[in-house]
Amino acid sequence: MTLAKAYAALEPKKPLEPFTFERRAPNEDDVVIDILYSGVCHSDIHQVRDEWFPGIYPQVPGHEIVGRVREVGSKVTKFKEGDAVGVGCFVDSCIHCQTRDVDREQYMPEQAVMTYNSRDRDGLPTYGGYSDHIVVKEGYVLKVPEHLPLDGAAPLLCAGITLWSPLKHWNAGPGKKVAIVGLGGLGHMGVKLGHALGAEITVLSQSLAKKDDALALGADHYYATNDAETFKTLAGSFDLIINTVSAPIDWNAYLGLLKIDGTMVLVGVPENPVPVHAFSLIMGRRSLAGSSIGSIKETQEMLDFCGEHNIVSDIELIDIQSINEAYERVIKSDVRYRFVIDIASLK
Amino acid sequence: MTLAKAYAALEPKKPLEPFTFERRAPNEDDVVIDILYSGVCHSDIHQVRDEWFPGIYPQVPGHEIVGRVREVGSKVTKFKEGDAVGVGCFVDSCIHCQTRDVDREQYMPEQAVMTYNSRDRDGLPTYGGYSDHIVVKEGYVLKVPEHLPLDGAAPLLCAGITLWSPLKHWNAGPGKKVAIVGLGGLGHMGVKLGHALGAEITVLSQSLAKKDDALALGADHYYATNDAETFKTLAGSFDLIINTVSAPIDWNAYLGLLKIDGTMVLVGVPENPVPVHAFSLIMGRRSLAGSSIGSIKETQEMLDFCGEHNIVSDIELIDIQSINEAYERVIKSDVRYRFVIDIASLK
Repeated sequence: MTLAKAYAALEPKKPLEPFTFERRAPNEDDVVIDILYSGVCHSDIHQVRDEWFPGIYPQVPGHEIVGRVREVGSKVTKFKEGDAVGVGCFVDSCIHCQTRDVDREQYMPEQAVMTYNSRDRDGLPTYGGYSDHIVVKEGYVLKVPEHLPLDGAAPLLCAGITLWSPLKHWNAGPGKKVAIVGLGGLGHMGVKLGHALGAEITVLSQSLAKKDDALALGADHYYATNDAETFKTLAGSFDLIINTVSAPIDWNAYLGLLKIDGTMVLVGVPENPVPVHAFSLIMGRRSLAGSSIGSIKETQEMLDFCGEHNIVSDIELIDIQSINEAYERVIKSDVRYRFVIDIASLK
Repeated sequence: MTLAKAYAALEPKKPLEPFTFERRAPNEDDVVIDILYSGVCHSDIHQVRDEWFPGIYPQVPGHEIVGRVREVGSKVTKFKEGDAVGVGCFVDSCIHCQTRDVDREQYMPEQAVMTYNSRDRDGLPTYGGYSDHIVVKEGYVLKVPEHLPLDGAAPLLCAGITLWSPLKHWNAGPGKKVAIVGLGGLGHMGVKLGHALGAEITVLSQSLAKKDDALALGADHYYATNDAETFKTLAGSFDLIINTVSAPIDWNAYLGLLKIDGTMVLVGVPENPVPVHAFSLIMGRRSLAGSSIGSIKETQEMLDFCGEHNIVSDIELIDIQSINEAYERVIKSDVRYRFVIDIASLK
């Protein structure tokens, strides 16, 4: 076992503070990773604050991890010391399944072992990326293209794959009109990835404030949703809408922007249920769907694609000592577009 | 022009009463149909009572029409005097479209000309099947297989196609597990059609009251939804759920019965929006969709399929003089499974 330095919430809703714990000694199929960068996801805040389900404490958040391989177990073949690697939202697949469903492992009925705030096969809690190293089974470690800036690459492991998976699953590409609702950590990755996939991208954001940013990120069009005209102008326009907003906006209004047979995919989770009128779906055979992160296979495909297209997240690099202040800014959407912790600041 | 005998609501929310009006003289592409049977759809009641949108009065409802051709216009080629024919929910497609989208005409942005409570291209109101004859463009008249009982065939024109279209669109067939929620006029057609398509059919109905009926109609399984165990037993079971219920049931509970990538299709319309939790869709990449009737092309395919498989609706035949009482019974779900008016009673 090795001692890990970290930041943790010692109890629900408490600010994060320095914390030390033990990582397991690597098994023969494990990879030990020196963490360089760890992205800050809004779901870190929900979980630290115990808002989604009863959490495990102390809790070390972080599931947008990029680092370099320190050491590998005797049976590891895909990685060697020094490789740039990533770890995303889960570190083992469903422990009840007989075989790993590599295409849909994130949806298994008995959930995968999540990177933090979860329990591993041995029943011990998992600790995430706000720490100096991590030990992960080879099958759940991703190769990060060496030429990408590794700090900007960190958010690909959650924000990136969360948008990539639905864009690919619902066939975003040339000839398809795709709207991205909300231009935050998730939305800005949707614009970059959707644009690189060849789709015509429209950003729907509350006000015109982020218009220049959106166009620079690769959006073809930008509309403010605080202008009622937007919903008239764009009625029946989109093959696919990806809604990244976790505020309780009126989904019916957005469903009206879909073409016949179009789909709106939710990747943000409002705290409470949102009223949906049957007519919003029946008129035009429209669908409302949801999507959650992506499989390891998809995540590797996305990282390879980002390597080819030089795509990373637009980030603000912070020291870990600023994490509680950063959380407040995330809640206010005051970041363009993702905080990434420089783990060197832990040492 | 010819005088038509009918029953109409002279004003919103008024009981239906005898009414006489003029049908247009047939154009060269028109078919004049002597109506034999007209099904009673729940949406007739909503429209007569002005519950969905401002209606046109006097209103002659009825869009599940079966009859025999009395006369055809000079350019009509598909029909001749004496043919058994049907008319469904619309009698002309979108009047604003340049070309007819034969696969999806029911979803056109500017709605098709509906069989009643709508306005034809000439601006005059359309009158439906609670009448002794109707004049309809050839392209919107369906061939009804001659060997089917024509009274039981009438509900195929709305209830039948409303279930057929989503069953086909979402690939119900061998190897697929399909649930039909609600065993009324729509649901019982879903069971018959889904079973004949080769899918494994489960009926989800409030109580066990209709279990024997459901199995006789072709269902493989039947569960009562007033038993909370049902939602545990069937969690993650279905590829497709078709929800025919217009009462405000908890859609989230039903979404939990879908497999990964499963879809619940709404064909019933609750009066008010229904709260949907994003997690119900995100967990398992599930979809909530809607479907409305079907195209003329699909309707003809469905009628041909019903001819091959000897499928008609289970009906209770009534005289038109009983229509107001029948409406009260429809509202109480006190009909197994569709009222059909014997139009001979009009004469």
